[in-house]
Amino acid sequence: MDFYLINNAFPAQVMVGAGALARLEWDREAGKVLIITDRGLLHTENIAKITRLFPKADIYGELSGEPTSAMVDAALEFSRRSRYDLVIGLGGGSALDTAKVVAALHGSRETVAEVFGKDLLGPRRTRMGLIPTTAGTGSEATPNSIVKDSADGVKKAVISKELIPDWVVLDAELTLSLPAAITASTGMDALCHCVESALSVHANPFSLAYSYHGIKLLSENIEAAVADGADLEVRGAMLLGSFLGGLALTIAGTTAVHALSYPLGKRGVPHGVANGMLLPWILEYNLPACAERLMALAPYLQSVKPLESAADIVDLTFEYVHTLPVPQTLDEVGIEAECLPELAAEAMKQERLLANNPRPLTAVDALALYRKLLAKKSTDG
Amino acid sequence: MDFYLINNAFPAQVMVGAGALARLEWDREAGKVLIITDRGLLHTENIAKITRLFPKADIYGELSGEPTSAMVDAALEFSRRSRYDLVIGLGGGSALDTAKVVAALHGSRETVAEVFGKDLLGPRRTRMGLIPTTAGTGSEATPNSIVKDSADGVKKAVISKELIPDWVVLDAELTLSLPAAITASTGMDALCHCVESALSVHANPFSLAYSYHGIKLLSENIEAAVADGADLEVRGAMLLGSFLGGLALTIAGTTAVHALSYPLGKRGVPHGVANGMLLPWILEYNLPACAERLMALAPYLQSVKPLESAADIVDLTFEYVHTLPVPQTLDEVGIEAECLPELAAEAMKQERLLANNPRPLTAVDALALYRKLLAKKSTDG
Repeated sequence: MDFYLINNAFPAQVMVGAGALARLEWDREAGKVLIITDRGLLHTENIAKITRLFPKADIYGELSGEPTSAMVDAALEFSRRSRYDLVIGLGGGSALDTAKVVAALHGSRETVAEVFGKDLLGPRRTRMGLIPTTAGTGSEATPNSIVKDSADGVKKAVISKELIPDWVVLDAELTLSLPAAITASTGMDALCHCVESALSVHANPFSLAYSYHGIKLLSENIEAAVADGADLEVRGAMLLGSFLGGLALTIAGTTAVHALSYPLGKRGVPHGVANGMLLPWILEYNLPACAERLMALAPYLQSVKPLESAADIVDLTFEYVHTLPVPQTLDEVGIEAECLPELAAEAMKQERLLANNPRPLTAVDALALYRKLLAKKSTDG
Repeated sequence: MDFYLINNAFPAQVMVGAGALARLEWDREAGKVLIITDRGLLHTENIAKITRLFPKADIYGELSGEPTSAMVDAALEFSRRSRYDLVIGLGGGSALDTAKVVAALHGSRETVAEVFGKDLLGPRRTRMGLIPTTAGTGSEATPNSIVKDSADGVKKAVISKELIPDWVVLDAELTLSLPAAITASTGMDALCHCVESALSVHANPFSLAYSYHGIKLLSENIEAAVADGADLEVRGAMLLGSFLGGLALTIAGTTAVHALSYPLGKRGVPHGVANGMLLPWILEYNLPACAERLMALAPYLQSVKPLESAADIVDLTFEYVHTLPVPQTLDEVGIEAECLPELAAEAMKQERLLANNPRPLTAVDALALYRKLLAKKSTDG
C-alpha cells in the first residue's frame, strides 16, 4: 500500500437513532416523491411511517427477492410515467439497490443493463434518500447497486458516485420486526463486508477504521440481536455496523466470499445466507496469504475463547455459522453436488471481486471450496 | 446518545502516502496560487517540493508561533493585493489554520475577529488545499481554525464547513525532519484529539470509529516516531492518526484538556506541549465520570503492562508524559505559581470545550488541576 486516495464517497447526511425516521426533516417539502420498497413491506408499520411523512408519495412495491435487470427496468418504467423530485428506497438491499438505479436513471432513457460497470452514469437529477430496514447490506453507504442481469443470470454491479444518496436514516426501530433467521443471515452479510474489506488487497490504514469498528459492533451484537430482536440498543449497533461495512467496502471492496456467493444467489440462496456459509471456508483458504492481517482482527472480535492465532479467528467464524440460525451446507439451501462445476465457472466471472482477494483463486480452488460446503465441517460431526 | 447526525464534514479528496506530494495532480492548472507557510519552513525542502509543483505561486511565510488575529489579518491583507484561485496551507497547525481563514475570507472585506463563532462565513470562492508537515493538529480534517484574539488574548474558534479543504495531502516524507521533541508534543496533541473526542459527551458510536483507530495508530507509533524519526511507515501512521483525530473532534469535540491548555498557549507554551502535560491529570479528574468509556480504550492502547482498569489507562498516559521528551510541569515551561488563578479564570472562558467534558469542571477544579502541574506526579519522586 504505497499510495491511496480517500475519496469522499459518503452520504451527505446521515441521521442515526431509534425513532429517527419520525423526526426526518430533509426533503419534506420535495415535490413529487416515489417510494421504492419490497413487496413484503407493503402494509407494514415501516411503510406507514414513511407515508406519514410523505402522504402524497407514490409507492412502487413490486420488488421481491434479489433484483434482476428486468425488475429494475420495470421500476424505472413505472418511475418514468411521472417526473419525481425525490426517490426514497426503504427496505433491504434489494429495495435500496433498485431505488438507487431508479433515482440515477429516472431522467434518462437508459436501461440498467446499459450502465453495468464503473462511472457510466450521467449526473443524477433526482434527490435520493435511503432507509434500510435490515442490518446487512450497507447499500445505503455505497456507490454500488448489484443487479442480476436477466440476459445471462450473472450478478453485475453499477458503480458510480451518482448512487450515493443525499441522505440516510439509520433507525433501529425499523429492524425490530426482522425474524431471527434474517437477522442472523443479514448480520453475517454485514460481517462479511467488514472482514472481507479488512483483508482485501485494497484495504488501507484508513479503511481499516471502518472495517475494525464494524467488526467490533457486529461481533459484539449479532448473537444478542438474534436472541432478542426487541433490544433497540443491540439493533442500533447492528445497523451502524452494517453502515460501516458499506463504507469499508466502498474503499477496499469485497473478496472471494462475495465472488463465490453470487452464483448461489442466482439459484435463489439469499445473499446473506450464501455469504455467511462461505465466510469461514474462504477465510480458511485465505489464511496462508494473510495470517497477520487476520490476527489483527482479534481485538475486535467477541469470543469466549482467547484468540491466539489466525486459525482461532477462522474457527470463530465457523462457530458463528454453527451457532447462529443460518445454513451451513449447500444441501440445506437446495444446491446439489452436480452443479458445483457450473457454480465455480460462474464465480470466476466475478473478476473485480476475485482481484481483491488476498490469495489467488482459480476455478479449481472455487470448486474445492464449494465441495467443502456440501457437508458440515468434519470437526463437529 | 439518542439521536445524532453524521454530517459529511470531510475533505473532498485526500491523498495518502510517503512521497504523495510530488504526485499531486489536483489544481495543477489553477490560475493564481498563494502558499501560506510557517517562517521556519521557508528555504526548506518541504517548501521546495510545493514550489516545484506551483512555480509561479506567491508565498506568504510570515507566520511564527501560534496564530493571532493580527497575524491572520496581516496574511489576509497580503492575500487581498491579488485575486487568488487557490490557497495552499503547508506547515503545522498555525499555517493550516491561517490558510483556512485566508481562503475563506479572501474574497470578502471581513477581519478574522468578525467571524469568530460558528457558521458566520459566507461561501468560499477560492479553492483550498492543505498539506500538514506535523502529525498533531489534524486541522486538515476539521472545519475549525483556532486563533488568539489579539484584543483580549483569548483563543477563539472560527467554525464553518467553508474551512474544510478541497484536498489534503498526507505525505509522511514532509514530517521526517521534525525533531524528536516536536514529534512527541505534536503526537501527544493528536492523541489528545482522539482520547478527548472518545470521552466527550458528544462522542457517538460512529465518531468512535475514528477515535479508536486514531488511538491505536498513535499509541503504537509515537514512541518509535520519537526514537527513529526516519521511519516512514511510523511517520505515516502518526500522520493518519492525526488526521483521524481531526475527523473525530469534528464530530465529538475536545474537552477540558484543550480548555485548560489554551491559557498556557497564550503564555507561549506550544499547543502540543500544553495538551500533553494536561492529558493525564484531566483523565484522572474525569475518571469517576467515565470509567467505563476510559476502559473501552484499552484494546487500542499499546502498553507493556496489562490494562485492567480505567486507572491503568490514566497511569499509562502519565507514563507517556514521563518517558516521551515532553515537559511534565509548569516549571519546565516557565509558568509560575502566582498566575494559576488567572489561568483558571481564562480556562473557564472555553465554555464550548468545557461543555463537552464528561465531568463538570469549575474554576476551583481548574485551579486544583493547574496546581498539580506544578510538580511531577508524586509517585515517581
